[in-house]
Amino acid sequence: MSSPLLMIPGPIEFSDKVLAAMSHSSMSHVSPAFIAVFGENLTMLRKVFLTEDSASQPFVISGSGTMGWDLVASNMVERGDDVLVLHTGYFADSFTECFECYGVNATQLKAPIGGRPSLEEVEKALKEKKYKMITITHTDTSTGVLSDVKGVCELVKRVSPDTLICVDGVCSVACEEIQFDKWGVDVALTASQKAIGVPAGLCILMVSGRGIKAYENRKDPPGSYFASFKKWIPIMQAYESKAPKYFATPAVQLIYALNASLKEILERPMADRFADHIKASDYVKKAIADMGLKQLALKPEFAAHGMTAVYTPNDMPVGELMPKIAAKKVVFAAGLHKDIATKYFRIGHMGVSATDRSRGDLDTALKALKEALKETGYDA
Amino acid sequence: MSSPLLMIPGPIEFSDKVLAAMSHSSMSHVSPAFIAVFGENLTMLRKVFLTEDSASQPFVISGSGTMGWDLVASNMVERGDDVLVLHTGYFADSFTECFECYGVNATQLKAPIGGRPSLEEVEKALKEKKYKMITITHTDTSTGVLSDVKGVCELVKRVSPDTLICVDGVCSVACEEIQFDKWGVDVALTASQKAIGVPAGLCILMVSGRGIKAYENRKDPPGSYFASFKKWIPIMQAYESKAPKYFATPAVQLIYALNASLKEILERPMADRFADHIKASDYVKKAIADMGLKQLALKPEFAAHGMTAVYTPNDMPVGELMPKIAAKKVVFAAGLHKDIATKYFRIGHMGVSATDRSRGDLDTALKALKEALKETGYDA
Repeated sequence: MSSPLLMIPGPIEFSDKVLAAMSHSSMSHVSPAFIAVFGENLTMLRKVFLTEDSASQPFVISGSGTMGWDLVASNMVERGDDVLVLHTGYFADSFTECFECYGVNATQLKAPIGGRPSLEEVEKALKEKKYKMITITHTDTSTGVLSDVKGVCELVKRVSPDTLICVDGVCSVACEEIQFDKWGVDVALTASQKAIGVPAGLCILMVSGRGIKAYENRKDPPGSYFASFKKWIPIMQAYESKAPKYFATPAVQLIYALNASLKEILERPMADRFADHIKASDYVKKAIADMGLKQLALKPEFAAHGMTAVYTPNDMPVGELMPKIAAKKVVFAAGLHKDIATKYFRIGHMGVSATDRSRGDLDTALKALKEALKETGYDA
Repeated sequence: MSSPLLMIPGPIEFSDKVLAAMSHSSMSHVSPAFIAVFGENLTMLRKVFLTEDSASQPFVISGSGTMGWDLVASNMVERGDDVLVLHTGYFADSFTECFECYGVNATQLKAPIGGRPSLEEVEKALKEKKYKMITITHTDTSTGVLSDVKGVCELVKRVSPDTLICVDGVCSVACEEIQFDKWGVDVALTASQKAIGVPAGLCILMVSGRGIKAYENRKDPPGSYFASFKKWIPIMQAYESKAPKYFATPAVQLIYALNASLKEILERPMADRFADHIKASDYVKKAIADMGLKQLALKPEFAAHGMTAVYTPNDMPVGELMPKIAAKKVVFAAGLHKDIATKYFRIGHMGVSATDRSRGDLDTALKALKEALKETGYDA
């Protein structure tokens, strides 16, 4: 393979089958063959999200993970509603901005960099004010901090059961455990280019029956046109029942690629896939520690399993390290959290890089890092 | 080629180079190599839209043509503004709905099926009320009716020069002439899967300097988050100057495919490409007439050059004809205009099917139609 090995927290490396599906010949978006593939994707997504409740509604829409916020903020809550945003990095700020765009009041509960709000802090916040929704960034891609989604869900059910639970799973769906039904999640959103393993361009959502009811009980119509549940629910329901229906032309080739990837994912139980990502993550994190490097995550249980955010040694500017790694045909991501962006980097280990260890992606990446560090004079 | 020949008004048939680019290996969305390709696309789009004004701003965003309406309605006009929507089919109704979603008052000027509002009617409407914007569906994909964009532009400049001009070019950009600068268009929008020749998943916009000013002079912030000019202008400007900047992950593979297609398109002057589409259209329309079939377009000059909408003979239900054509491995589109959906069908002839006549797509399609008609008992 002459192209560089992409080890960033999305886009990830894609399987050969997925890339081949991207070149699918042009197909009518209302042809029975295509509709069947789209419908099958929706049904397979139920399995990926571990939901068996027929009231759950999957969505696959052309766009990006960012658009998932519009889908939540313009349909499930409305002008004047209060939402509690658990803040573990960059993406909570953006989600907050999205809520505000639609007139929704977002209150942030912030943690220091590398940390996450404690359950006690969340409980206190939930008791101080009635929130229509709480949002949890499962893995914040900017910091690699993992939230305790299960713990927060249990807490919400206990102290504020009417509050809708939103999981921003852009960097977690299909690599971190999400028990959509069991934990009582109301909406989980993701994008195609992360652990779902498909080139960027699709926004993917799962909404609970209760989440759909919250939309149905709105006083005002949805705040967005392209991101309107009113438009998309009939489309998704038609596709899943294998009937054509038109609102906007779907990204046909990406839908075929999604089909290829979901089939690969569902060849094994989701639990095995989550375990693979934990194993890969442990492997990377041990190697990082062995090199004497420090993670952003303040505690081991705060660290995501699909990526690792690592401080450069001795405050070395990341701009010095990155080109040396790139020269070895391995790509890491630079920092994104504005306060420390120049002092850390991020390694992605999702999808085939974690599940197909015969590719050797993790070792190739770690070797490149070790050698690059040595070249900077750091003795790893 | 074992896959059916897709002769619908989008998605169209794609060139081999474009489909190959869809399988591009995974690349970081902030890598210099990718940013250079994205930036080059934006610069090439200026040539496709025939704008040399440096104040013009191209946008390429993950989504669909439908999202282009959100970009216009939530940025360039605002709550309480009046817009005049010239109605030549289904898509004017949807655009109207989009405006209303953002609190914009849309007044439709309707024509009978197959017709378009006359310049006199448009002039009368513009004199009756002050409109912030006028929208023209260049080719309405539901009816195949072509609007006189040049004529409407001249009229607007004469009788209501402050009115912004919006061209819905989903089914016209890169196949019908659009002189963005010369005609004084303020925004033209399209989608990748039509004459631009790239799989669906990209929304493409060109906005004039005056259009950008209208956004900058808004009283309120944009009505959408994902479709916000505030978010996207800095991104597009960064890309075009070859600098990385992040708001949402772009659809990397589609951007490579767009690069391949724009390069193919710009190998020749745009005028030659428009002429090719006229030639192909004339060829199809003559054959249709020779078969004794009637077009939806009430006059020859009302007929688009990228597609042809045709009534079935003797009110034959289109559901009877379509499968017979499909059996010959050619795909046409059924009707979309709700009043007559079962009585007509649509043939697309955009992109390589029109410009690379050595493929024989037009003849293959017309032969399939002729034979299918014969099978129904109609003597074509």
